[in-house]
Amino acid sequence: MRSITVLSGGVGGATFLRGLLHGVRRGLVPGVDSDAEVTVVANTADDIWLHGLKVCPDLDTVMYTLGGGIDPERGWGRTAETWHAKEELAAYGVEPTWFGLGDRDIATHLVRTQMLDAGYPLSAVTAALCRRWLTPVLGDGVELLPMTDERVETHVVIDDPESGPEGVERKAVHFQEYWIRHQASVTAHAVVPIGIEDARPGPGVVEAITEADLVIVPPSNPVVSVGTILGVPGVREAIAATSAPVVGVSGIIGQDHVRGMARQLLEVIGVEVSAAGVAEHYGARAYGGVLDGWLVDTTDAASVDRVTAAGLRCRAVPLWMIDHDATADMAAAALDLVR
Amino acid sequence: MRSITVLSGGVGGATFLRGLLHGVRRGLVPGVDSDAEVTVVANTADDIWLHGLKVCPDLDTVMYTLGGGIDPERGWGRTAETWHAKEELAAYGVEPTWFGLGDRDIATHLVRTQMLDAGYPLSAVTAALCRRWLTPVLGDGVELLPMTDERVETHVVIDDPESGPEGVERKAVHFQEYWIRHQASVTAHAVVPIGIEDARPGPGVVEAITEADLVIVPPSNPVVSVGTILGVPGVREAIAATSAPVVGVSGIIGQDHVRGMARQLLEVIGVEVSAAGVAEHYGARAYGGVLDGWLVDTTDAASVDRVTAAGLRCRAVPLWMIDHDATADMAAAALDLVR
Repeated sequence: MRSITVLSGGVGGATFLRGLLHGVRRGLVPGVDSDAEVTVVANTADDIWLHGLKVCPDLDTVMYTLGGGIDPERGWGRTAETWHAKEELAAYGVEPTWFGLGDRDIATHLVRTQMLDAGYPLSAVTAALCRRWLTPVLGDGVELLPMTDERVETHVVIDDPESGPEGVERKAVHFQEYWIRHQASVTAHAVVPIGIEDARPGPGVVEAITEADLVIVPPSNPVVSVGTILGVPGVREAIAATSAPVVGVSGIIGQDHVRGMARQLLEVIGVEVSAAGVAEHYGARAYGGVLDGWLVDTTDAASVDRVTAAGLRCRAVPLWMIDHDATADMAAAALDLVR
Repeated sequence: MRSITVLSGGVGGATFLRGLLHGVRRGLVPGVDSDAEVTVVANTADDIWLHGLKVCPDLDTVMYTLGGGIDPERGWGRTAETWHAKEELAAYGVEPTWFGLGDRDIATHLVRTQMLDAGYPLSAVTAALCRRWLTPVLGDGVELLPMTDERVETHVVIDDPESGPEGVERKAVHFQEYWIRHQASVTAHAVVPIGIEDARPGPGVVEAITEADLVIVPPSNPVVSVGTILGVPGVREAIAATSAPVVGVSGIIGQDHVRGMARQLLEVIGVEVSAAGVAEHYGARAYGGVLDGWLVDTTDAASVDRVTAAGLRCRAVPLWMIDHDATADMAAAALDLVR
């Protein structure tokens, strides 16, 4: 097996990818060449313009994580980061103040914004940024592709926390505002990926899926990460068409997410918060869904039969990504499931 | 005397202004009300776009200096500054790497750039930034006006340091490149304030000159700071028309500048590097120039007669701005000269 494509969001996907690459390069994933190509199709629907800068949280989390620049404690942003520009923006009274724009991170956004302003598509900008981060560390075998070059922005319809006494009003806010400012703690009613109907898959995205030997859906958010990638017209068709097996790893263990806020967002779209519920939501390729196989955590071993009944191969293995070896074992189990 | 207008560049002008305000507010400048308004018309011809950000070095030096945010050692940029974004931009291989864009400073440029992109003129943007820096410290009595809202950029024609063996070639570089990258140490042939013919004085600039009780030309660079302000069509006419006396303070002491690189630039435009030489260059208002009076340092007492012969009142007093009191004394002497 020479090429693997992963549909990734931010922290969960990036952590999985780091373990996958660790395993592949060290020959720990049976059936995969140690120099296999790994292509990441990353969610861009939580991108946001802040202070005139184009910020792409998932692209950057993957890039910094694989390139060794991530802050390992936070899981996002740069290591050895400072926050002086952010402090000063707040001192000017400029909104928003809730987004953590670090000083080192700003350089990435400056380069990206300037290239976009010069007319380069996001895919070309991402490739340029990755020449600093990925090429020196990983060579040319890892490619990071935005799901689309078009602007797609997930908004969440929430109960406005500033509603007056005359009743709760709803408003739509950018996903980042829901996620970071409100910590997903306000009541949400709908998730709307604005612009997605008119988006086209970015250069190489369809080919990365149709020409892969294996497609993996990592434990990223099924709604606002993987869900938006799948929502780009043409991506589901590519997944339906590929001869590669498609295998997913549950980010839900027990009745909650491992990290992030998948629980809240699954509730918004009416999907049961469980490994089996998410498997049914993705669905089996044989029945018009996107997966051939699904790994659940050993905690959820009892749900294997239910997932199997939905037409998916399923196995319960440890899914806590406690270190790169554990994650590599997950990747090996995923591949073994659909081989 | 209730209103003073100062035509300022960066460090020299800002230092003078700080001492002037110190003196005025404490009643140390005889004849000037302690709550007199001080209007600064600042040079914008060394403004530069860097990494997609609009940087206005002279406006910011005045703003930070008067607002207490300046780094007192360097004389420019922010106190307690860090340089992480700059490091990262260099790590991306993005040019230019020779300009010192500090992390705190970047916030100012982000706010400015975003407001300019939103359609506000530089004068409105400057007023907004000054509401943070000047109003809390100095009240409403100090106003900072860009000389123009139009884009003017001083370029310097230099011997290209990268000329090949077949001979020295000339090229035009942005003033900041000459100043910071080359430290004014390459041979320069001409100073060209690009766009100045089509520039108009910024809002309030002409009135600040014609309605002032006193106009001061501080020890700023006569070529690339004061020279460009005077070069904006309408400014010389305002100076000719004002009923206020116009008095200048020499930034040349002995045969060299006190700070900066005025010597090099005076040589480029063929002006003798001396207090008297600069006085003759500015010229007496009575003969079509811009000054009524000119202070020279005690070192240059011998040149008082020559300056007087050029039609200017002149006196030799200590011109080293060693502290705010010394600078306030200079301001008092300047006013005394032309009262």
